[in-house]
Amino acid sequence: MMNRTEFRVRYGETDQMGIVHHATYPLYFEMGRTELFRQLGIPYTKLEAMGIIMPLSSLTIKYISPAKYDDLLVVETSICEFTPLKIVMTYNIVTKGHQVLTTGETTLISVDATSRKPKRLSASIFELINTAIRNDV
Amino acid sequence: MMNRTEFRVRYGETDQMGIVHHATYPLYFEMGRTELFRQLGIPYTKLEAMGIIMPLSSLTIKYISPAKYDDLLVVETSICEFTPLKIVMTYNIVTKGHQVLTTGETTLISVDATSRKPKRLSASIFELINTAIRNDV
Amino acid sequence: MMNRTEFRVRYGETDQMGIVHHATYPLYFEMGRTELFRQLGIPYTKLEAMGIIMPLSSLTIKYISPAKYDDLLVVETSICEFTPLKIVMTYNIVTKGHQVLTTGETTLISVDATSRKPKRLSASIFELINTAIRNDV
Amino acid sequence: MMNRTEFRVRYGETDQMGIVHHATYPLYFEMGRTELFRQLGIPYTKLEAMGIIMPLSSLTIKYISPAKYDDLLVVETSICEFTPLKIVMTYNIVTKGHQVLTTGETTLISVDATSRKPKRLSASIFELINTAIRNDV
Repeated sequence: MMNRTEFRVRYGETDQMGIVHHATYPLYFEMGRTELFRQLGIPYTKLEAMGIIMPLSSLTIKYISPAKYDDLLVVETSICEFTPLKIVMTYNIVTKGHQVLTTGETTLISVDATSRKPKRLSASIFELINTAIRNDV
Repeated sequence: MMNRTEFRVRYGETDQMGIVHHATYPLYFEMGRTELFRQLGIPYTKLEAMGIIMPLSSLTIKYISPAKYDDLLVVETSICEFTPLKIVMTYNIVTKGHQVLTTGETTLISVDATSRKPKRLSASIFELINTAIRNDV
Repeated sequence: MMNRTEFRVRYGETDQMGIVHHATYPLYFEMGRTELFRQLGIPYTKLEAMGIIMPLSSLTIKYISPAKYDDLLVVETSICEFTPLKIVMTYNIVTKGHQVLTTGETTLISVDATSRKPKRLSASIFELINTAIRNDV
Repeated sequence: MMNRTEFRVRYGETDQMGIVHHATYPLYFEMGRTELFRQLGIPYTKLEAMGIIMPLSSLTIKYISPAKYDDLLVVETSICEFTPLKIVMTYNIVTKGHQVLTTGETTLISVDATSRKPKRLSASIFELINTAIRNDV
């Protein structure tokens, strides 16, 4: 199960080293995550409409090689762990020539939008995602 | 009526020209605005707690001289027009030596947080702000 | 002469009002500008490689209707004034249904990357851009 | 050896969950890092002026409790490993009441600004920082 989403580096994402600023990558991961949820048939907007928010509980990034302004890149997003309470995803930022520039991992937890407390995904949503993951090649 | 708030330029606010990226200045203005509301005795958090949000309807910036990483700057914020439906504020980003680097203007409109429609500030809030403006030297 | 570039709103571009934060729009304009330069046959990366940088001297934005997370939008970018020393561009952020959410204008000035002083575009670059503008339908 | 730097959360740093967006924390860490270098007597601007840049090779963040708009917070920054080729720093984002909201760790590597290759810090700079660390209580 992997989503591949193409994007181009914006000028404002660089810093005075002439490379993409390190705090930009979580936004690239977020784009990939959004597209992965859409690919699964459950747009993240739909989850929020059902009263579920999914904030991060952890983030890890390895910066291997810098991205630059106007680079045409791909964020590859995969789910590596999924329970009714959390989703762990991994990310690669790669060039069109498949060079890996950056890797990352996020843990999202399922939280009730009103109470702001952890809340298990409903059985129907869990099954929906789980089936999508299993059915995917 | 002017608020002066000091801040330091962050590394991530620069771009590959080696200067502060132009989209950063609205965030500096926003800091100044937050402090001006606090100085008036009406923290913006309090307005939101009362169900009022104040999105921008317009923004203008003149970039005179670039700010750089680690510069210690001041945002000067003033109200230049105030009605129950909108607040127009002007901003100067200045060095400690009083050189003006950037000027700006924003128009905020008063909107009901639930209906998302324009809504006049209540007479009591309007008077509170208006009195604060008038009493200020 | 107009460039139309599609993009999707990122989650991190929203604020707690639940709409795209106002400081995000200059980044959308910047994407449009980058694509317009590319469409003209002069990628902005090429201009910088020739020692020319084009910082903003002014920015104006009118916020008409808010954009939201996951909206699929288009930035329309046009050149409305062009001299060897500056380029004035206008922008519309529109929905796929052609509703205009935001309009903007930027003035870019031509600056020598080393001296950081205004510098006229060389006759050849000026003609290249000017011809591209004139030849475009 | 710890630097404590106070800051206030900006409105634009929130997202539509009503909390500080997760990609903002690396910018808070960066503020702390800047102040720690200054406290050591070696402003990061000075390092760059000497031809050394220090990009990140890794970043880890644990999100424990969310920060909100207008929160007055402190970033605590410490060096936990230091060699002529890299600096590992740890961060806590804490409330004024000493509640830890977020923790993080970054690894910076020393790179030659021109060649963009790893470069050992000169003995004099290394000693300067090392002495500052040792002398600090």
